[in-house]
Amino acid sequence: MTEVTRSVQIVLPQHCNGYANPRLFGGQVMAWIDVIGAVAARRYAHGAVTTACVAHLSFLNPAHLNDTVVQEARVTWTGRTSIEVRVDTFVEQLDGTRSTVNIAHVVYVALDDDEKPRPVPPFVPETDEEKAEYAAACLRRQQRSGR
Amino acid sequence: MTEVTRSVQIVLPQHCNGYANPRLFGGQVMAWIDVIGAVAARRYAHGAVTTACVAHLSFLNPAHLNDTVVQEARVTWTGRTSIEVRVDTFVEQLDGTRSTVNIAHVVYVALDDDEKPRPVPPFVPETDEEKAEYAAACLRRQQRSGR
Amino acid sequence: MTEVTRSVQIVLPQHCNGYANPRLFGGQVMAWIDVIGAVAARRYAHGAVTTACVAHLSFLNPAHLNDTVVQEARVTWTGRTSIEVRVDTFVEQLDGTRSTVNIAHVVYVALDDDEKPRPVPPFVPETDEEKAEYAAACLRRQQRSGR
Amino acid sequence: MTEVTRSVQIVLPQHCNGYANPRLFGGQVMAWIDVIGAVAARRYAHGAVTTACVAHLSFLNPAHLNDTVVQEARVTWTGRTSIEVRVDTFVEQLDGTRSTVNIAHVVYVALDDDEKPRPVPPFVPETDEEKAEYAAACLRRQQRSGR
Amino acid sequence: MTEVTRSVQIVLPQHCNGYANPRLFGGQVMAWIDVIGAVAARRYAHGAVTTACVAHLSFLNPAHLNDTVVQEARVTWTGRTSIEVRVDTFVEQLDGTRSTVNIAHVVYVALDDDEKPRPVPPFVPETDEEKAEYAAACLRRQQRSGR
Amino acid sequence: MTEVTRSVQIVLPQHCNGYANPRLFGGQVMAWIDVIGAVAARRYAHGAVTTACVAHLSFLNPAHLNDTVVQEARVTWTGRTSIEVRVDTFVEQLDGTRSTVNIAHVVYVALDDDEKPRPVPPFVPETDEEKAEYAAACLRRQQRSGR
Repeated sequence: MTEVTRSVQIVLPQHCNGYANPRLFGGQVMAWIDVIGAVAARRYAHGAVTTACVAHLSFLNPAHLNDTVVQEARVTWTGRTSIEVRVDTFVEQLDGTRSTVNIAHVVYVALDDDEKPRPVPPFVPETDEEKAEYAAACLRRQQRSGR
Repeated sequence: MTEVTRSVQIVLPQHCNGYANPRLFGGQVMAWIDVIGAVAARRYAHGAVTTACVAHLSFLNPAHLNDTVVQEARVTWTGRTSIEVRVDTFVEQLDGTRSTVNIAHVVYVALDDDEKPRPVPPFVPETDEEKAEYAAACLRRQQRSGR
Repeated sequence: MTEVTRSVQIVLPQHCNGYANPRLFGGQVMAWIDVIGAVAARRYAHGAVTTACVAHLSFLNPAHLNDTVVQEARVTWTGRTSIEVRVDTFVEQLDGTRSTVNIAHVVYVALDDDEKPRPVPPFVPETDEEKAEYAAACLRRQQRSGR
Repeated sequence: MTEVTRSVQIVLPQHCNGYANPRLFGGQVMAWIDVIGAVAARRYAHGAVTTACVAHLSFLNPAHLNDTVVQEARVTWTGRTSIEVRVDTFVEQLDGTRSTVNIAHVVYVALDDDEKPRPVPPFVPETDEEKAEYAAACLRRQQRSGR
Repeated sequence: MTEVTRSVQIVLPQHCNGYANPRLFGGQVMAWIDVIGAVAARRYAHGAVTTACVAHLSFLNPAHLNDTVVQEARVTWTGRTSIEVRVDTFVEQLDGTRSTVNIAHVVYVALDDDEKPRPVPPFVPETDEEKAEYAAACLRRQQRSGR
Repeated sequence: MTEVTRSVQIVLPQHCNGYANPRLFGGQVMAWIDVIGAVAARRYAHGAVTTACVAHLSFLNPAHLNDTVVQEARVTWTGRTSIEVRVDTFVEQLDGTRSTVNIAHVVYVALDDDEKPRPVPPFVPETDEEKAEYAAACLRRQQRSGR
């Protein structure tokens, strides 16, 4: 089964927007997604990577000031030189329950020492969940090329 | 014709990744996109907005340390309470020529004083370019609901 | 007429001071002024620039948390190797009305590839507003050299 | 066995000192330690916590620009209202090997809704490693009170 | 003799511009000046203050990556509710010699509990250096009101 | 008597945690301690230094949003190539009274041009206070090596 990369943050005022009830600022959570996604892609590629595209990112629930934010990243699809990573971002309450802040699919390209794309081993989905993610990734790719 | 919101940045070391030839870090450019997109959406809605989703964001060319980055945001589509904004991010060379760093479509939801969604006036595309953007936004929406 | 460089920001908690009613921190707005002013000077010089002095900067009205901040920069005067840029910083209300946060005059020096000063084409004021700005810049320069 | 809280970072220029071969700045790694340690303590206390002291923190190996940094935090000891957390910070090479950047023992105090200390359930070490950590924590505590 | 407020910084990559030989970014040094100047003004006013204007700020020498930056602030002039502070920013070499980065004169207004201007005790220059600073501050004020 | 290195900060929202009554975030104060301690060690060593360990750091009182923070650093002990610095962090009220936020003992190693440890002149305590600090530093060192 695919390895899960995990990370935690505490939402500080420097991460929030200026609402009366401060929320985690969208740009900040995108920055955190990009870092953990890149670590998951590096671990898969055993090498350097660069961000190629954000396939889709939906904000489902806000995170608020002082919340514990938990992120999980896992590889969902590969092309010849590209790696799609799904990043789930949660708020974890003090009692351990979680609500999803957003789900992002970010595509990275593996780089060689000259910062040129280099091939990666193909990702083979095993569990049913992985197979469903893989199929959805293929569909997104088709839709984009069809535009 | 739709109003254009403009912004400029200079790429400082604090905005870069750790490559030998430092590049603008993907998470940082996403944060900048979210801010200028939110300003364009506020200007359209004459009110507060929150980020709902990043429909798509492709990195086409890197920006490097010390580059001048120019951003342009314009409304491309509206739903009942949501506003899609296209954000173009360029590197502007010292001779004035520009290369595209990426193109993002970000959807914001207009909020009333209780931070609940509120209706926005419908966006009516006028130029051919606006009509093409509008059609592409509709297609993206169909594809997502079809998943 | 002289080109206007434009930029927008949203005032986040990370940009504010610690007042009960948080205001945009003076040091942060100076940092934003320095960036947009440098972009305007780069565009004029078609080359690298470095900050030489802040001729004067008056805070007229505060900006508060969550405000949209709009900045406009334009060249007002040139010396042999130096370029004065006026930067206007506004708060833009959701209804589009603006109040001035401050007006700054910042002088940059154009640099060649060895980071030595290099000559710039002389700025020729055209409109009445430009001529008034130019005369004020000359006066500031005289006063400083008279100290 | 005690739960492990995990986090990852990529060392960006904004996290480094100004050496010719840039290293992760000591103050930055301390800030990361404080966040992950607080999350581990929150998870143990099922409530808010505040940092009480850094018992000891030794820098063993530097982390450099662009390194993947991995952190692991686990509870090692509790007092009536305090929780000691051990935070291990590693550099993870692209081939998966790890070198230790530093090991920190940070003590947090659990807080009730009025930000007053509140009791926590006692930590009972189970494995041999946990028992050794627990004994070392007791010794540190004795030595401090003996000063 | 007037009290001197002192501060130190180390120039990290996050404080620099993107030159081949990185320099302390002008906007960052302005932010540091605003903080130490405000502390000096608070100490004089025994109360809250807000930044009113930067009377003048000249960059004399650059600071570079990894330099030790030392700042000194002292009150130079007062009006009814305003306090002018001179801030000297130096680079301190490892052998203790100093070169001046810039000299700024920043004016703060003392605030009462409702954030309205409140009177401050008049500053009386004593040493010859203080008298010269005071006279220069009066001249700057005349010149500005004469514009 | 040993030289004192001094620094000041104002606690801004970007330095705070997310409590209802915002406090200076522990990780931020550790970052400030590391900078001023390194400057004190550089001044003693007349050369570059790197952080080796935080011997002990106790949080005694919180600092809150908008507080003036004052730091004082002085050398307390030296080994062959290492320098222990004590950093006191205070909140300074507007009336000038101070409360201690924390006291840290940080050990730095002096580096030569190849970033290898290099010997430093031995620190000789003179005042009674210095002698007590020196003895406590020796005891800490013994205790650590005894572990």
